[in-house]
Amino acid sequence: MFFQIIDILGTIAFAISGVLVALNKKLDPFGVFIIAFVTAVGGGTLRDVLIGKTPVFWMLDMTFLYVIAGSTLFAVIFRYKLDKLRKSLFLFDTIGIGLYTVIGVEKGLAAGLHPLICIALGTMSACFGGVLRDILCNEIPVIFRKEIYATACIVGGMVYFGLSAMDVIENNLVFLISGLVVIVVRLTAVVFKISLPTLYRVNQ
Amino acid sequence: MFFQIIDILGTIAFAISGVLVALNKKLDPFGVFIIAFVTAVGGGTLRDVLIGKTPVFWMLDMTFLYVIAGSTLFAVIFRYKLDKLRKSLFLFDTIGIGLYTVIGVEKGLAAGLHPLICIALGTMSACFGGVLRDILCNEIPVIFRKEIYATACIVGGMVYFGLSAMDVIENNLVFLISGLVVIVVRLTAVVFKISLPTLYRVNQ
Amino acid sequence: MFFQIIDILGTIAFAISGVLVALNKKLDPFGVFIIAFVTAVGGGTLRDVLIGKTPVFWMLDMTFLYVIAGSTLFAVIFRYKLDKLRKSLFLFDTIGIGLYTVIGVEKGLAAGLHPLICIALGTMSACFGGVLRDILCNEIPVIFRKEIYATACIVGGMVYFGLSAMDVIENNLVFLISGLVVIVVRLTAVVFKISLPTLYRVNQ
Repeated sequence: MFFQIIDILGTIAFAISGVLVALNKKLDPFGVFIIAFVTAVGGGTLRDVLIGKTPVFWMLDMTFLYVIAGSTLFAVIFRYKLDKLRKSLFLFDTIGIGLYTVIGVEKGLAAGLHPLICIALGTMSACFGGVLRDILCNEIPVIFRKEIYATACIVGGMVYFGLSAMDVIENNLVFLISGLVVIVVRLTAVVFKISLPTLYRVNQ
Repeated sequence: MFFQIIDILGTIAFAISGVLVALNKKLDPFGVFIIAFVTAVGGGTLRDVLIGKTPVFWMLDMTFLYVIAGSTLFAVIFRYKLDKLRKSLFLFDTIGIGLYTVIGVEKGLAAGLHPLICIALGTMSACFGGVLRDILCNEIPVIFRKEIYATACIVGGMVYFGLSAMDVIENNLVFLISGLVVIVVRLTAVVFKISLPTLYRVNQ
Repeated sequence: MFFQIIDILGTIAFAISGVLVALNKKLDPFGVFIIAFVTAVGGGTLRDVLIGKTPVFWMLDMTFLYVIAGSTLFAVIFRYKLDKLRKSLFLFDTIGIGLYTVIGVEKGLAAGLHPLICIALGTMSACFGGVLRDILCNEIPVIFRKEIYATACIVGGMVYFGLSAMDVIENNLVFLISGLVVIVVRLTAVVFKISLPTLYRVNQ
């Protein structure tokens, strides 16, 4: 129940981020909805397809469709006022990737995959929706360019396996702590403007 | 038999639309064929992958490969004369999305999915080929920007379930009527230049 | 064992080609790694998803992840010196597509698919990684524009079935010869600057 609420908050944040990018590109109402949908479910869909869990998750639970449709409507109507929600949205989004990362890791474990692959799967679940959004809108995906985003997911995934290996903390708590690590790493990076070290000379 | 002919006409129209976009981007012969192929089978492929029906449809029925190869050859040779076929191609394309929508809806039903998900699946089957074509050619997908296209599919899908729920019309007729609705909605929209209401101020 | 070494050399070449494109687009370290990864495993992943062989190959064999991570690190560190390796990389890449084509063909056969579909599958396995790399970096895929690349794969695939049909050469040798055909066709095309006939008037 608690996780379901987080899941819905994350879906809302992802969908709204899709709406904002789509409006910026002047897409029509259908296009806006599709971008919102793809942003919200793209990561989990890739995860399910790669491990062969089909039909994919949003086909089996209508909550996602309803939440995304509602969020899109809300975001389109109130788009000129969304600036005031920017901080809440950022928070939801960050909580969302924390949750999706850990869910992805656990789905990988359930499929009997190697820990590193599970971490990759969790990171994809959290990040691929945003990548698809940017590709569909004809941009180089933002997460490849400047944000500590995927890195936070990877760190959270590593913490998950580190804690599991210690074998003293119960599983639910491992889930919670790892998700929190993703959130804390991302918040810290944003607040202190930390980014990955650049590979390029500054004057380039 | 009747539906197979429609299916082939739709495939031809989709393939040729791919060829035209690819030629416009000055792709080489192989690139042109690939874009034609992806445009024609992309929607059904996504549908099959998402519901887990693999190997996907065009791997199991060689008709598609042959029809697409033939259409590509034809379109490349006669490209300077295709303008005269523009109306026929538009009609084939429209008939094609009508058929693909209803096939997609029925495949979703066969997989036990919720009606709204079936409508989404049908719409994807009809539209995703064109989306892939535009992404591969580095354009923002045209259906996100200006056409009543997906909307026609959605309306047709809703009619399918509306008629089925009434439970007085036999299934074949439901299939036919819903497909026709897709076609009529799209033709009407194009003839009367109807588009989705804009989300943007006109002077923007 | 012999084929595994080729597979690794091919993976290295693909990963490094990804790194070079990503650096050129000024992506951050994470983005560079992802592009390298996607370039190296994209083709085989599409192959496995389309025929329903999931979890996909790189989730079941950690070699790929390690080799790609190592290659990325190497390529990032020595990127200003990679020019000297250009010929070796081109050779690895060419050997790689030869191998991937034939592996793809054989996976298609194992799934009971038609020879032409197997050839398509082999070609996709070899080429789709590069296509994904270019899409993610917001370019029209290079193989659609100017190289004898996919064509070499298609020719190799056809030789595979031609030799198999003759039924006098043992299977391992068919595998080897077909792979070599891919390599020779591509090398010949590059050395003699052969490309597909253009579809466009020269003064266009």
